[in-house]
Amino acid sequence: MLNRYKAHRNWMLPGGFVRKTESIDTAAARLLELRTGLENCYLRQFAASGELDESITEENKRLLKEYGMKDVDSHWMSNRFVSIEYFAFVNYSKTRIKPTADEECDWFSLDRLPPLFGNHREIIGKAIRTLRMVVNYIPAGEELLPEKFTMSELRVIYEAILGQKLDRRNFQRKILSHGYVYQLDETSRKWGVKDAALFSFNKERCRKALENGLDFF
Amino acid sequence: MLNRYKAHRNWMLPGGFVRKTESIDTAAARLLELRTGLENCYLRQFAASGELDESITEENKRLLKEYGMKDVDSHWMSNRFVSIEYFAFVNYSKTRIKPTADEECDWFSLDRLPPLFGNHREIIGKAIRTLRMVVNYIPAGEELLPEKFTMSELRVIYEAILGQKLDRRNFQRKILSHGYVYQLDETSRKWGVKDAALFSFNKERCRKALENGLDFF
Repeated sequence: MLNRYKAHRNWMLPGGFVRKTESIDTAAARLLELRTGLENCYLRQFAASGELDESITEENKRLLKEYGMKDVDSHWMSNRFVSIEYFAFVNYSKTRIKPTADEECDWFSLDRLPPLFGNHREIIGKAIRTLRMVVNYIPAGEELLPEKFTMSELRVIYEAILGQKLDRRNFQRKILSHGYVYQLDETSRKWGVKDAALFSFNKERCRKALENGLDFF
Repeated sequence: MLNRYKAHRNWMLPGGFVRKTESIDTAAARLLELRTGLENCYLRQFAASGELDESITEENKRLLKEYGMKDVDSHWMSNRFVSIEYFAFVNYSKTRIKPTADEECDWFSLDRLPPLFGNHREIIGKAIRTLRMVVNYIPAGEELLPEKFTMSELRVIYEAILGQKLDRRNFQRKILSHGYVYQLDETSRKWGVKDAALFSFNKERCRKALENGLDFF
């Protein structure tokens, strides 16, 4: 999801400033809830960036001028920004987009991103690279799937995250080896002629693996 | 490695402030090099923290008073700190500890840590938890081992990081499955009666895996 303030040309990752009296994790949760209505998401800090980025300071100076500010060059918004970056696993069909008064919000496909503010395109790239690494050691898909699902439905999510096709049998073997997904004694006819096995997440193991990672060794 | 400023009671993780004109990654490399002489290390940003921590603000106020500062409460050092945290893979026998003028520096064992400043004990805990997760998807040990090594020597490093004994055969199978360690056509008598197989890192694959992670799927 991206948002665009009416005075801005470019779209931005939904963010905001950390309040003096809140922690950075609280700020991230507050700013996500502000635009999506979602609470208690799996929100993961993945990086911080603080390059001296002229495209940010120049855009901010332009905005300050537009708002009629004086002493634009010495304003704190004309200085370097440090941003602390989070991703969340959400089911986007459950979100209610709530733009604030002077902005618009929308979902975009990763391969059709609009022009973005500052270093936000790089932040998205970093988020995707991180996500592709962490699906090796934390479970994904729990938010997106129904209680009971087929292995193909889970594989499609991993293929979307990894941006590549995965071998069907290899995938099933690896997923089941971790024990956070287990096979049910039921099948589904939903996806074709043959009865497809149904699976479910072990919620307790998922929660632990999200906190502590899966054991590879 | 920890350092302690002469005016401080507690030891600290080696850190410092980001200069106005440098990026945060550059600052991290500069501050590591300052104390260890090491350059071009694998330095990985793993978290940021910015809790409102009275133990930090109170300690800083005490120091400001000791240095004879006035208006201690409104000084920027009496406010909340945001720290961006990095770990590095280093061979500590190759480091040259270089304390700055008003500090001492030393290595400590994780199970015998001295009293630490502010939230630095929690940062160390977070670093260890992160390291235990990332050894699932990035190679470790390259800095610590000689060109040729036995699988036991590598396993001891993983056991130290993970804080547990690992199954010998399982470990070897998993390490070799990633392809960044390969077996040499040589053996070693160093570790006992029988000739132990020798292995080496594929440096190109290690470099790629440090950047992009290992493929699990």
